[in-house]
Amino acid sequence: MVIGLSTMLEKTEALFASDHASVVSMNLFVALLCACIVLGHLLEETRWMNESITALIIGSCTGIVILLISGGKSSRILVFSEDLFFIYLLPPIIFNAGFQVKKKQFFRNFMTIMLFGAIGTLISFVIISFGAKHLFEKMNIGDLTIADYLAIGAIFSATDSVCTLQVLNQDETPLLYSLVFGEGVVNDATSVVLFNAIQRFDLTNINSAIALEFAGNFFYLFILSTALGVAAGLLSAFVIKKLYIGRHSTDREVALMMLLAYLSYMLAELFHLSSILTVFFCGIVMSHYTWHNVTDKSKVTTKHTFAAMSFLAEIFIFLYVGMDALDIEKWDVVRNSPGQSIGVSSILLGLILLGRAAFVFPLSFLSNLTKSSPDEKIDLKKQVTIWWAGLMRGAVSMALAYNQFTTSGHTKVLGNAIMITSTITVVLFSTVVFGLLTKPLVKHLQPSSKQSSTTALQITLRSSFHDPILHEPLLSTQGQSEYDPEQHVSFRMFWKSPSRFTH
Amino acid sequence: MVIGLSTMLEKTEALFASDHASVVSMNLFVALLCACIVLGHLLEETRWMNESITALIIGSCTGIVILLISGGKSSRILVFSEDLFFIYLLPPIIFNAGFQVKKKQFFRNFMTIMLFGAIGTLISFVIISFGAKHLFEKMNIGDLTIADYLAIGAIFSATDSVCTLQVLNQDETPLLYSLVFGEGVVNDATSVVLFNAIQRFDLTNINSAIALEFAGNFFYLFILSTALGVAAGLLSAFVIKKLYIGRHSTDREVALMMLLAYLSYMLAELFHLSSILTVFFCGIVMSHYTWHNVTDKSKVTTKHTFAAMSFLAEIFIFLYVGMDALDIEKWDVVRNSPGQSIGVSSILLGLILLGRAAFVFPLSFLSNLTKSSPDEKIDLKKQVTIWWAGLMRGAVSMALAYNQFTTSGHTKVLGNAIMITSTITVVLFSTVVFGLLTKPLVKHLQPSSKQSSTTALQITLRSSFHDPILHEPLLSTQGQSEYDPEQHVSFRMFWKSPSRFTH
Repeated sequence: MVIGLSTMLEKTEALFASDHASVVSMNLFVALLCACIVLGHLLEETRWMNESITALIIGSCTGIVILLISGGKSSRILVFSEDLFFIYLLPPIIFNAGFQVKKKQFFRNFMTIMLFGAIGTLISFVIISFGAKHLFEKMNIGDLTIADYLAIGAIFSATDSVCTLQVLNQDETPLLYSLVFGEGVVNDATSVVLFNAIQRFDLTNINSAIALEFAGNFFYLFILSTALGVAAGLLSAFVIKKLYIGRHSTDREVALMMLLAYLSYMLAELFHLSSILTVFFCGIVMSHYTWHNVTDKSKVTTKHTFAAMSFLAEIFIFLYVGMDALDIEKWDVVRNSPGQSIGVSSILLGLILLGRAAFVFPLSFLSNLTKSSPDEKIDLKKQVTIWWAGLMRGAVSMALAYNQFTTSGHTKVLGNAIMITSTITVVLFSTVVFGLLTKPLVKHLQPSSKQSSTTALQITLRSSFHDPILHEPLLSTQGQSEYDPEQHVSFRMFWKSPSRFTH
Repeated sequence: MVIGLSTMLEKTEALFASDHASVVSMNLFVALLCACIVLGHLLEETRWMNESITALIIGSCTGIVILLISGGKSSRILVFSEDLFFIYLLPPIIFNAGFQVKKKQFFRNFMTIMLFGAIGTLISFVIISFGAKHLFEKMNIGDLTIADYLAIGAIFSATDSVCTLQVLNQDETPLLYSLVFGEGVVNDATSVVLFNAIQRFDLTNINSAIALEFAGNFFYLFILSTALGVAAGLLSAFVIKKLYIGRHSTDREVALMMLLAYLSYMLAELFHLSSILTVFFCGIVMSHYTWHNVTDKSKVTTKHTFAAMSFLAEIFIFLYVGMDALDIEKWDVVRNSPGQSIGVSSILLGLILLGRAAFVFPLSFLSNLTKSSPDEKIDLKKQVTIWWAGLMRGAVSMALAYNQFTTSGHTKVLGNAIMITSTITVVLFSTVVFGLLTKPLVKHLQPSSKQSSTTALQITLRSSFHDPILHEPLLSTQGQSEYDPEQHVSFRMFWKSPSRFTH
């Protein structure tokens, strides 16, 4: 324990002159992140693009440029690291998801979400595992054990909720959003638990006792992880309310909320629970209790800070996956068998389509049986959207595949190399192609109704015109009137009042 | 370059089971950070304490506990790493300092600040170097070269602006705050530039040509670093205004500001400039130009996020220094010569007191000659406060000492070991003892005048009572009326209006 953390950060080189290479890489990476934000913003208007795809494409292009500069030797400025992903990038994304989720919708559809997330993922896992075993054994792609096939099932059952969320809109399609998003979180947890179990259990002879132990393990993890997240959230609410932290500075509240959220994630890691579930429920409880006990400045700050951190982590991941995809070392081994590689990738994509269809439609039918009002039922258009929105595979799949099929990042064995390159192909293809088609599909299947929200805005605006605090004419800045005008009202006073920032 | 960054983060261990030790350390560290915030909050009322001292004491206590648990083998859960400090912890602190500084005061006193920060640090450096050389040579503490003595001068000329800022109040004593704080930043830059120059130049035979080159180098670094920071700040303002980033989401603006600020720091590192100066001026320009072009929510968010990040980095550093101080390995070598160690530390403390007095009083006199109005003159009480407020030594001194006197963190040579332990002693003693005395001293010498600000607040409040948007009676929440009541007004509308968070 004693010098554990230091191994993550330890650097022995001297301070100033040394390590110029890593400074260059960091500059390049930060500059690319800026480019992703600016380009993503400029491309927002188009029907097809979203930030994930922009980052993925920029990452790949950078990879190609580096590949050309280095004379075909390497394309990476950083190696895909599971720790970086699971310890630093994933927590803000999942926490923010819990923090911003519409709780009413989420809990109203809780049973459906659990059905999709847990049972659905299991169905998808079984179909992909058996399909892969059946089809790959005929293809002569090296030695894959039964554990490998089960791992493939878990790897490709993990949907990419990050990418999906950029397409669906929480305000326009609340039911769909909560279903797809909620499923995504439970799905993440389920696949990680499954994957974990596969690596731990002896799977050469599966019997009913092991299956039962497996199920028990899953429920144990689920309940304990949720409880830990809820406890951390409640603790933060208690401390902030009771000790009245905001009295001194809003910064302390913000810092404390961040720390406690992260602590819940790390505690779950410590006890080998599902840290994703923990931090998700911590986010829900914090937005429900803690958020209402902090100062008003903290409310605005936390909402936007958590969203901005999550946003940064997302584009970081996609940039990263895009760059890592072109790493020449992995492709070297499979260069001689391009047919096999393409075949494996196509089979996996087909199994993903099939595995998802096999649970979305039947489980929707089951869920509809329990609902009485037609508003709550999932009609066929919604079912197709749910099916499609969960087809993308992302960084979780990459991280799990690296864990199963590489040791220390190298892929010299044919079977392993093919699985890694196929995972990359599936992630790139599903994110770019399925991702590009999602926005038009959702628009087509779920025509949005913006009418009502516009009216509400106008009412708010009208009442603001009589605000005696405001001495300047409202909306005098032409060309800005489209842009969230109510903010101008509510904050104008705040601009003028002096604010003190003490630590 | 190609896999540079990865070396910082690379981990080859497997995903889930492995590396339990580092997870334990991280949990402990995050929990300690939470404890520091809560305890710091509870101790705020006392006359003496501040957050730095709390963190330092908690860190030392944890170190003792770990030392006892591990049976006297080790006291650290992480090794002091210069990279962690200079790449991740220092940038948010200095950037936030620039972002929140009162620019009018800063630029009005620019010449005085430069005088104190550059010339003053040089004077202090010369006195400490010569004093150390003169006194240590009689003490038989191992081989120290002329470069070592010069390095000692640079190390102990670096004041700890972080700790100082917690004591002075920008609103109550604006002139003092801007002088002490501005000096601290320029001082940081000067000592790092000095230290850098000492390691690079051949100092065995100093002549006027080398001295001239040295001075040229300093001005070159100063001007280029400032220009880079200003350019990065202006770029962010241009991009955010021109491309209208806030139209889509406030999160993008916040993320872009963070990234560009960090990019300026890393670019300065890349070109071997003074990254501290760069990021400081980037902060000033961002708060002056960029901040006025972002959405209103971004304004609140950036102000508080940067402050919270800076605050977290500060307590992280002090916790860290406190824990590292008890590392048994360093003390092993000097265990047999406690007298020498105490002697060296006392001499260094004396030289720090003397070196600072030698420039604060003469330079204040010089500065007063150029000022006409008595308000702008630095009277004797202010001079004493400035002298005292810059006596603390902190993480910059630690980082520089590690860089000069250790190779790969080990300290087996007596001279090096004594210098490292003396640095720790000086840092602990100056922060705790000088730090504890600063608050009462400032209160005694600079009685605050809170009257005027209260009145302004009351006027704002009164006008708010007539706000027709607000339907609830103002300040109905008893017991909260003391606490920044104007926020209740300005934000109430914001709570009620629905806000959308899209990426």
